Amino acid sequence: MSKLRVNAFTLSADGYGAGPDQSLQHPLGVGGENLHKWLTTTRTFHKMVIGKEGGATGIDDDLAVRSFENVGAYILGRNMFGPIRGAWPDESWKGWWGDNPPYHVPVFVLTHHKRAPITMEGGTTFHFVTDGIHSALEQAKAVAGDKDVRLGGGVSTFRQYLQLRLIDEMHLAISPVLLGSGENLFAGLDMVKLGYRCTEHIATPHAMHVMIGRA
Amino acid sequence: MSKLRVNAFTLSADGYGAGPDQSLQHPLGVGGENLHKWLTTTRTFHKMVIGKEGGATGIDDDLAVRSFENVGAYILGRNMFGPIRGAWPDESWKGWWGDNPPYHVPVFVLTHHKRAPITMEGGTTFHFVTDGIHSALEQAKAVAGDKDVRLGGGVSTFRQYLQLRLIDEMHLAISPVLLGSGENLFAGLDMVKLGYRCTEHIATPHAMHVMIGRA
Repeated sequence: MSKLRVNAFTLSADGYGAGPDQSLQHPLGVGGENLHKWLTTTRTFHKMVIGKEGGATGIDDDLAVRSFENVGAYILGRNMFGPIRGAWPDESWKGWWGDNPPYHVPVFVLTHHKRAPITMEGGTTFHFVTDGIHSALEQAKAVAGDKDVRLGGGVSTFRQYLQLRLIDEMHLAISPVLLGSGENLFAGLDMVKLGYRCTEHIATPHAMHVMIGRA
Repeated sequence: MSKLRVNAFTLSADGYGAGPDQSLQHPLGVGGENLHKWLTTTRTFHKMVIGKEGGATGIDDDLAVRSFENVGAYILGRNMFGPIRGAWPDESWKGWWGDNPPYHVPVFVLTHHKRAPITMEGGTTFHFVTDGIHSALEQAKAVAGDKDVRLGGGVSTFRQYLQLRLIDEMHLAISPVLLGSGENLFAGLDMVKLGYRCTEHIATPHAMHVMIGRA
Protein backbone atom coordinates (compact mmCIF):
# COMPACT_ATOMS: atom_id res chain seq x y z
CA MET A 1 0.00 0.00 0.00
CA SER A 2 1.15 3.51 -0.69
CA LYS A 3 2.87 5.11 2.31
CA LEU A 4 3.66 8.63 3.38
CA ARG A 5 7.35 8.49 4.24
CA VAL A 6 10.33 10.59 5.17
CA ASN A 7 13.81 9.57 4.08
CA ALA A 8 17.30 10.79 4.64
CA PHE A 9 16.36 13.74 6.80
CA THR A 10 19.20 14.82 9.03
CA LEU A 11 19.04 16.23 12.55
CA SER A 12 21.87 17.73 14.55
CA ALA A 13 22.81 16.19 17.89
CA ASP A 14 20.85 19.03 19.51
CA GLY A 15 17.73 18.25 17.49
CA TYR A 16 17.69 20.76 14.67
CA GLY A 17 16.83 19.92 11.08
CA ALA A 18 18.30 23.08 9.67
CA GLY A 19 20.46 25.88 10.93
CA PRO A 20 19.15 29.38 11.68
CA ASP A 21 18.83 32.19 9.11
CA GLN A 22 18.07 30.28 5.92
CA SER A 23 18.94 32.31 2.82
CA LEU A 24 20.11 31.94 -0.76
CA GLN A 25 23.67 31.58 0.50
CA HIS A 26 22.65 29.14 3.22
CA PRO A 27 19.84 26.94 1.88
CA LEU A 28 20.07 24.76 4.99
CA GLY A 29 20.55 27.66 7.37
CA VAL A 30 23.87 28.77 8.80
CA GLY A 31 25.94 25.69 9.64
CA GLY A 32 23.36 23.37 8.09
CA GLU A 33 25.74 22.02 5.41
CA ASN A 34 27.85 20.19 8.01
CA LEU A 35 24.84 18.12 8.95
CA HIS A 36 24.72 16.29 5.67
CA LYS A 37 28.19 14.86 5.28
CA TRP A 38 26.84 11.31 5.51
CA LEU A 39 24.68 12.02 2.44
CA THR A 40 26.75 14.40 0.33
CA THR A 41 29.67 11.95 0.31
CA THR A 42 27.58 9.11 -1.17
CA ARG A 43 27.67 7.86 -4.74
CA THR A 44 23.90 8.30 -4.95
CA PHE A 45 24.05 11.96 -3.98
CA HIS A 46 26.79 12.50 -6.55
CA LYS A 47 24.72 10.83 -9.25
CA MET A 48 21.20 12.02 -8.42
CA VAL A 49 21.79 15.50 -7.05
CA ILE A 50 25.14 16.81 -8.29
CA GLY A 51 25.04 14.84 -11.54
CA LYS A 52 28.60 13.55 -11.21
CA GLU A 53 30.44 10.27 -10.95
CA GLY A 54 32.17 9.26 -7.74
CA GLY A 55 31.21 9.15 -4.10
CA ALA A 56 31.20 6.43 -1.48
CA THR A 57 29.24 3.20 -1.33
CA GLY A 58 28.20 1.42 1.89
CA ILE A 59 25.44 1.86 4.44
CA ASP A 60 25.05 5.62 3.97
CA ASP A 61 24.77 5.11 0.24
CA ASP A 62 22.32 2.22 0.61
CA LEU A 63 20.05 4.53 2.59
CA ALA A 64 20.44 7.26 -0.01
CA VAL A 65 19.43 4.75 -2.71
CA ARG A 66 16.43 3.67 -0.67
CA SER A 67 15.33 7.30 -0.29
CA PHE A 68 14.74 7.57 -4.04
CA GLU A 69 13.08 4.17 -4.55
CA ASN A 70 9.37 3.71 -5.16
CA VAL A 71 8.53 7.41 -4.83
CA GLY A 72 5.51 8.48 -6.89
CA ALA A 73 5.24 12.06 -5.64
CA TYR A 74 6.84 14.48 -3.20
CA ILE A 75 5.42 17.01 -0.79
CA LEU A 76 7.65 19.92 0.20
CA GLY A 77 7.16 22.79 2.60
CA ARG A 78 7.50 26.22 1.09
CA ASN A 79 10.89 26.82 2.71
CA MET A 80 12.32 23.66 1.20
CA PHE A 81 11.44 25.04 -2.20
CA GLY A 82 13.17 28.35 -1.73
CA PRO A 83 14.21 31.28 0.42
CA ILE A 84 11.31 33.54 -0.62
CA ARG A 85 8.75 34.31 2.10
CA GLY A 86 5.27 35.79 1.59
CA ALA A 87 3.78 36.41 -1.85
CA TRP A 88 5.73 35.33 -4.97
CA PRO A 89 7.28 38.53 -6.39
CA ASP A 90 7.37 36.95 -9.88
CA GLU A 91 7.68 33.55 -11.57
CA SER A 92 11.47 33.46 -11.67
CA TRP A 93 12.23 31.26 -8.65
CA LYS A 94 12.05 27.61 -9.70
CA GLY A 95 13.65 25.86 -6.74
CA TRP A 96 17.24 25.35 -5.59
CA TRP A 97 18.03 22.59 -8.05
CA GLY A 98 18.42 24.08 -11.53
CA ASP A 99 16.52 23.08 -14.69
CA ASN A 100 16.47 19.35 -13.95
CA PRO A 101 15.61 18.83 -10.26
CA PRO A 102 16.34 15.46 -8.61
CA TYR A 103 12.64 14.54 -8.19
CA HIS A 104 11.48 13.33 -11.64
CA VAL A 105 7.87 13.06 -10.43
CA PRO A 106 5.20 15.60 -9.39
CA VAL A 107 6.17 17.70 -6.38
CA PHE A 108 3.47 19.40 -4.28
CA VAL A 109 4.73 22.56 -2.58
CA LEU A 110 2.77 23.80 0.44
CA THR A 111 2.25 27.56 0.34
CA HIS A 112 -0.28 30.22 1.25
CA HIS A 113 0.28 31.97 -2.07
CA LYS A 114 -1.17 30.74 -5.35
CA ARG A 115 1.06 30.09 -8.29
CA ALA A 116 0.73 28.22 -11.60
CA PRO A 117 2.44 24.81 -11.87
CA ILE A 118 5.98 24.73 -13.28
CA THR A 119 7.07 21.92 -15.57
CA MET A 120 10.80 21.27 -15.28
CA GLU A 121 13.12 18.99 -17.25
CA GLY A 122 13.36 15.31 -16.34
CA GLY A 123 9.77 14.72 -15.26
CA THR A 124 9.55 17.08 -12.28
CA THR A 125 6.48 19.34 -12.07
CA PHE A 126 6.03 21.72 -9.16
CA HIS A 127 2.41 22.14 -8.08
CA PHE A 128 1.57 24.81 -5.51
CA VAL A 129 -1.02 23.76 -2.95
CA THR A 130 -2.76 26.53 -1.03
CA ASP A 131 -5.56 24.59 0.64
CA GLY A 132 -3.63 22.72 3.31
CA ILE A 133 -1.71 19.58 4.11
CA HIS A 134 -4.63 17.17 3.69
CA SER A 135 -5.23 18.46 0.19
CA ALA A 136 -1.54 18.12 -0.68
CA LEU A 137 -1.54 14.53 0.58
CA GLU A 138 -4.66 13.64 -1.41
CA GLN A 139 -3.28 15.14 -4.60
CA ALA A 140 0.09 13.46 -4.09
CA LYS A 141 -1.46 10.04 -3.37
CA ALA A 142 -3.67 10.38 -6.44
CA VAL A 143 -0.68 10.82 -8.76
CA ALA A 144 1.56 8.37 -6.86
CA GLY A 145 -0.81 5.44 -7.33
CA ASP A 146 0.76 2.32 -5.79
CA LYS A 147 4.00 4.14 -5.12
CA ASP A 148 4.79 6.07 -1.94
CA VAL A 149 4.56 9.77 -1.27
CA ARG A 150 7.80 11.16 0.13
CA LEU A 151 7.65 14.14 2.41
CA GLY A 152 10.77 16.17 1.74
CA GLY A 153 10.55 18.51 4.71
CA GLY A 154 11.25 20.78 6.35
CA VAL A 155 10.77 20.43 10.04
CA SER A 156 7.59 22.48 10.23
CA THR A 157 5.97 20.34 7.53
CA PHE A 158 7.00 17.13 9.28
CA ARG A 159 5.57 18.40 12.56
CA GLN A 160 2.22 19.20 10.98
CA TYR A 161 1.91 15.73 9.44
CA LEU A 162 3.22 13.98 12.58
CA GLN A 163 0.72 15.72 14.82
CA LEU A 164 -2.06 14.18 12.70
CA ARG A 165 -0.26 10.78 12.70
CA LEU A 166 -0.20 10.86 8.91
CA ILE A 167 3.44 9.84 8.45
CA ASP A 168 3.94 6.06 8.15
CA GLU A 169 7.74 5.82 8.21
CA MET A 170 10.66 8.15 8.88
CA HIS A 171 14.34 7.62 8.28
CA LEU A 172 16.29 10.21 10.25
CA ALA A 173 20.04 10.58 10.35
CA ILE A 174 21.43 12.14 13.54
CA SER A 175 24.74 13.87 12.88
CA PRO A 176 27.45 14.63 15.45
CA VAL A 177 27.12 18.36 14.95
CA LEU A 178 25.67 21.11 17.17
CA LEU A 179 23.58 23.79 15.46
CA GLY A 180 22.51 25.68 18.57
CA SER A 181 19.27 26.99 17.14
CA GLY A 182 17.00 26.59 14.16
CA GLU A 183 14.05 24.32 13.65
CA ASN A 184 13.72 21.65 16.31
CA LEU A 185 11.89 18.55 15.07
CA PHE A 186 10.75 17.02 18.34
CA ALA A 187 10.31 19.96 20.73
CA GLY A 188 6.87 19.71 22.30
CA LEU A 189 5.93 16.77 20.08
CA ASP A 190 5.31 13.59 22.08
CA MET A 191 6.27 10.93 19.56
CA VAL A 192 5.46 8.09 21.94
CA LYS A 193 1.93 9.37 22.62
CA LEU A 194 1.50 9.87 18.87
CA GLY A 195 2.16 6.16 18.48
CA TYR A 196 5.68 6.15 17.06
CA ARG A 197 8.77 4.19 18.05
CA CYS A 198 12.25 3.41 16.74
CA THR A 199 11.98 0.24 14.70
CA GLU A 200 15.57 -0.08 13.48
CA HIS A 201 18.90 1.73 13.71
CA ILE A 202 22.37 1.58 12.31
CA ALA A 203 25.36 3.81 12.86
CA THR A 204 28.07 4.79 10.40
CA PRO A 205 31.13 6.99 10.92
CA HIS A 206 29.10 10.04 9.82
CA ALA A 207 25.70 9.58 11.50
CA MET A 208 23.34 7.38 13.44
CA HIS A 209 20.44 6.32 11.24
CA VAL A 210 17.14 5.82 13.01
CA MET A 211 13.99 4.35 11.48
CA ILE A 212 10.74 5.44 13.06
CA GLY A 213 7.46 3.67 12.52
CA ARG A 214 4.20 3.01 14.27
CA ALA A 215 4.37 1.30 17.65
CA MET B 1 43.96 21.59 35.30
CA SER B 2 40.85 20.39 37.05
CA LYS B 3 37.81 20.31 34.76
CA LEU B 4 34.08 20.27 35.24
CA ARG B 5 32.94 17.39 33.07
CA VAL B 6 29.98 15.27 32.14
CA ASN B 7 30.45 11.64 31.16
CA ALA B 8 28.28 8.85 29.91
CA PHE B 9 25.05 10.81 29.94
CA THR B 10 22.49 9.36 27.56
CA LEU B 11 19.90 11.18 25.49
CA SER B 12 17.07 9.67 23.50
CA ALA B 13 16.88 10.33 19.75
CA ASP B 14 14.22 12.93 20.56
CA GLY B 15 16.48 14.72 23.03
CA TYR B 16 15.37 13.56 26.46
CA GLY B 17 17.76 12.62 29.25
CA ALA B 18 15.15 10.79 31.27
CA GLY B 19 11.63 9.57 30.74
CA PRO B 20 8.58 11.24 32.29
CA ASP B 21 7.18 10.46 35.76
CA GLN B 22 10.33 9.59 37.70
CA SER B 23 9.54 7.48 40.78
CA LEU B 24 11.00 4.79 43.02
CA GLN B 25 9.92 2.18 40.46
CA HIS B 26 11.25 4.24 37.55
CA PRO B 27 14.44 6.01 38.68
CA LEU B 28 15.06 7.13 35.09
CA GLY B 29 11.43 7.95 34.36
CA VAL B 30 9.05 5.70 32.45
CA GLY B 31 10.93 4.10 29.54
CA GLY B 32 14.25 5.58 30.70
CA GLU B 33 15.91 2.21 31.25
CA ASN B 34 15.98 1.45 27.51
CA LEU B 35 18.19 4.46 26.97
CA HIS B 36 21.14 2.97 28.75
CA LYS B 37 21.71 -0.37 27.04
CA TRP B 38 25.10 0.80 25.74
CA LEU B 39 26.20 1.34 29.34
CA THR B 40 24.43 -1.37 31.32
CA THR B 41 25.87 -4.08 29.06
CA THR B 42 29.50 -3.03 29.71
CA ARG B 43 32.00 -4.80 31.93
CA THR B 44 32.64 -1.54 33.77
CA PHE B 45 28.98 -1.08 34.67
CA HIS B 46 28.84 -4.67 35.88
CA LYS B 47 31.90 -4.16 38.05
CA MET B 48 31.40 -0.60 39.32
CA VAL B 49 27.63 -0.35 39.64
CA ILE B 50 26.14 -3.84 39.92
CA GLY B 51 29.18 -5.34 41.63
CA LYS B 52 29.29 -8.40 39.36
CA GLU B 53 31.64 -10.06 36.90
CA GLY B 54 30.82 -10.14 33.20
CA GLY B 55 29.71 -7.59 30.64
CA ALA B 56 31.07 -6.47 27.29
CA THR B 57 34.35 -4.80 26.43
CA GLY B 58 34.90 -2.49 23.46
CA ILE B 59 34.19 1.17 22.72
CA ASP B 60 31.17 1.45 24.99
CA ASP B 61 33.16 -0.05 27.82
CA ASP B 62 36.19 2.17 27.12
CA LEU B 63 33.94 5.20 27.54
CA ALA B 64 32.45 3.77 30.72
CA VAL B 65 36.01 3.30 32.08
CA ARG B 66 36.90 6.87 31.14
CA SER B 67 33.81 8.16 32.96
CA PHE B 68 35.22 6.98 36.30
CA GLU B 69 38.82 8.06 35.75
CA ASN B 70 40.41 11.04 37.48
CA VAL B 71 37.22 12.10 39.27
CA GLY B 72 37.85 13.85 42.60
CA ALA B 73 34.26 14.85 43.39
CA TYR B 74 30.75 14.65 41.96
CA ILE B 75 27.91 17.14 41.80
CA LEU B 76 24.38 15.74 41.49
CA GLY B 77 21.02 17.41 41.12
CA ARG B 78 18.51 16.56 43.80
CA ASN B 79 16.49 14.33 41.47
CA MET B 80 19.53 12.23 40.62
CA PHE B 81 19.88 11.52 44.32
CA GLY B 82 16.33 10.34 44.84
CA PRO B 83 12.63 10.54 44.09
CA ILE B 84 11.78 12.71 47.13
CA ARG B 85 10.65 16.27 46.31
CA GLY B 86 10.44 19.17 48.77
CA ALA B 87 11.65 18.93 52.37
CA TRP B 88 13.35 15.72 53.56
CA PRO B 89 10.71 13.84 55.58
CA ASP B 90 13.47 12.10 57.59
CA GLU B 91 17.06 10.87 57.22
CA SER B 92 16.21 7.46 55.79
CA TRP B 93 16.77 8.09 52.05
CA LYS B 94 20.47 7.62 51.24
CA GLY B 95 20.41 7.49 47.45
CA TRP B 96 19.52 4.84 44.90
CA TRP B 97 22.72 2.87 45.26
CA GLY B 98 22.70 0.97 48.56
CA ASP B 99 25.31 1.15 51.32
CA ASN B 100 28.33 1.38 49.01
CA PRO B 101 27.54 3.82 46.18
CA PRO B 102 29.67 3.79 43.00
CA TYR B 103 31.24 7.23 43.70
CA HIS B 104 33.96 6.60 46.30
CA VAL B 105 34.64 10.35 46.63
CA PRO B 106 32.65 13.29 48.03
CA VAL B 107 29.34 13.93 46.25
CA PHE B 108 27.69 17.35 46.43
CA VAL B 109 23.91 17.16 46.08
CA LEU B 110 22.09 20.35 45.03
CA THR B 111 18.95 20.91 47.07
CA HIS B 112 16.88 23.68 48.58
CA HIS B 113 16.52 21.74 51.82
CA LYS B 114 19.30 21.44 54.42
CA ARG B 115 20.47 18.08 55.58
CA ALA B 116 23.51 16.77 57.45
CA PRO B 117 26.20 14.97 55.39
CA ILE B 118 25.94 11.19 55.09
CA THR B 119 29.05 9.03 55.16
CA MET B 120 28.58 5.85 53.18
CA GLU B 121 30.79 2.81 52.74
CA GLY B 122 33.63 2.84 50.22
CA GLY B 123 34.61 6.51 50.51
CA THR B 124 31.39 8.19 49.33
CA THR B 125 30.10 11.09 51.40
CA PHE B 126 26.93 12.93 50.39
CA HIS B 127 27.05 16.66 51.14
CA PHE B 128 23.88 18.70 50.68
CA VAL B 129 24.44 22.14 49.17
CA THR B 130 21.66 24.68 49.62
CA ASP B 131 23.41 27.86 48.47
CA GLY B 132 23.49 27.28 44.72
CA ILE B 133 25.47 25.81 41.86
CA HIS B 134 28.51 28.10 42.24
CA SER B 135 28.92 27.08 45.84
CA ALA B 136 28.63 23.40 44.92
CA LEU B 137 31.29 23.82 42.26
CA GLU B 138 33.66 25.64 44.62
CA GLN B 139 33.25 23.00 47.31
CA ALA B 140 33.68 20.18 44.82
CA LYS B 141 36.81 21.75 43.26
CA ALA B 142 38.30 22.29 46.71
CA VAL B 143 38.07 18.60 47.59
CA ALA B 144 38.92 17.37 44.06
CA GLY B 145 42.29 19.16 43.97
CA ASP B 146 44.03 18.32 40.69
CA LYS B 147 41.34 15.84 39.74
CA ASP B 148 38.18 16.68 37.83
CA VAL B 149 34.71 17.35 39.11
CA ARG B 150 32.11 15.21 37.39
CA LEU B 151 28.60 16.52 37.04
CA GLY B 152 26.31 13.52 37.30
CA GLY B 153 23.11 15.19 36.12
CA GLY B 154 20.28 15.42 35.63
CA VAL B 155 19.24 17.52 32.71
CA SER B 156 18.15 20.52 34.75
CA THR B 157 21.51 20.64 36.52
CA PHE B 158 23.40 20.40 33.22
CA ARG B 159 21.34 23.23 31.79
CA GLN B 160 22.09 25.50 34.72
CA TYR B 161 25.85 24.92 34.45
CA LEU B 162 25.81 25.12 30.63
CA GLN B 163 24.00 28.47 30.64
CA LEU B 164 26.90 29.86 32.68
CA ARG B 165 29.46 28.14 30.40
CA LEU B 166 30.89 26.33 33.41
CA ILE B 167 31.06 22.85 31.87
CA ASP B 168 34.38 22.12 30.15
CA GLU B 169 33.62 18.76 28.51
CA MET B 170 30.57 16.59 27.93
CA HIS B 171 30.37 13.02 26.72
CA LEU B 172 26.82 12.32 25.60
CA ALA B 173 25.51 9.05 24.21
CA ILE B 174 22.54 9.35 21.87
CA SER B 175 20.43 6.19 21.90
CA PRO B 176 18.08 5.02 19.13
CA VAL B 177 15.06 5.24 21.39
CA LEU B 178 12.12 7.65 21.48
CA LEU B 179 10.92 8.81 24.90
CA GLY B 180 8.28 11.27 23.75
CA SER B 181 8.50 13.54 26.75
CA GLY B 182 10.59 14.15 29.82
CA GLU B 183 13.53 16.44 30.34
CA ASN B 184 14.94 17.87 27.12
CA LEU B 185 18.63 18.78 27.39
CA PHE B 186 18.97 21.25 24.53
CA ALA B 187 15.53 22.87 24.18
CA GLY B 188 15.99 26.62 24.16
CA LEU B 189 19.70 26.31 24.93
CA ASP B 190 21.87 27.64 22.10
CA MET B 191 24.98 25.52 22.48
CA VAL B 192 26.75 27.24 19.59
CA LYS B 193 26.22 30.72 21.04
CA LEU B 194 27.37 29.39 24.41
CA GLY B 195 30.64 28.47 22.71
CA TYR B 196 30.35 24.70 22.47
CA ARG B 197 30.91 22.33 19.56
CA CYS B 198 31.25 18.61 18.87
CA THR B 199 34.93 17.77 19.11
CA GLU B 200 34.81 14.01 18.52
CA HIS B 201 32.30 11.26 17.89
CA ILE B 202 32.10 7.53 17.55
CA ALA B 203 29.18 5.22 16.98
CA THR B 204 28.60 1.73 18.32
CA PRO B 205 25.69 -0.65 17.73
CA HIS B 206 23.93 0.76 20.82
CA ALA B 207 24.54 4.53 20.62
CA MET B 208 26.30 7.43 18.98
CA HIS B 209 28.83 8.93 21.37
CA VAL B 210 29.39 12.65 21.02
CA MET B 211 32.09 14.67 22.79
CA ILE B 212 31.30 18.33 23.31
CA GLY B 213 33.89 20.92 24.20
CA ARG B 214 34.60 24.57 23.81
CA ALA B 215 34.70 25.93 20.26
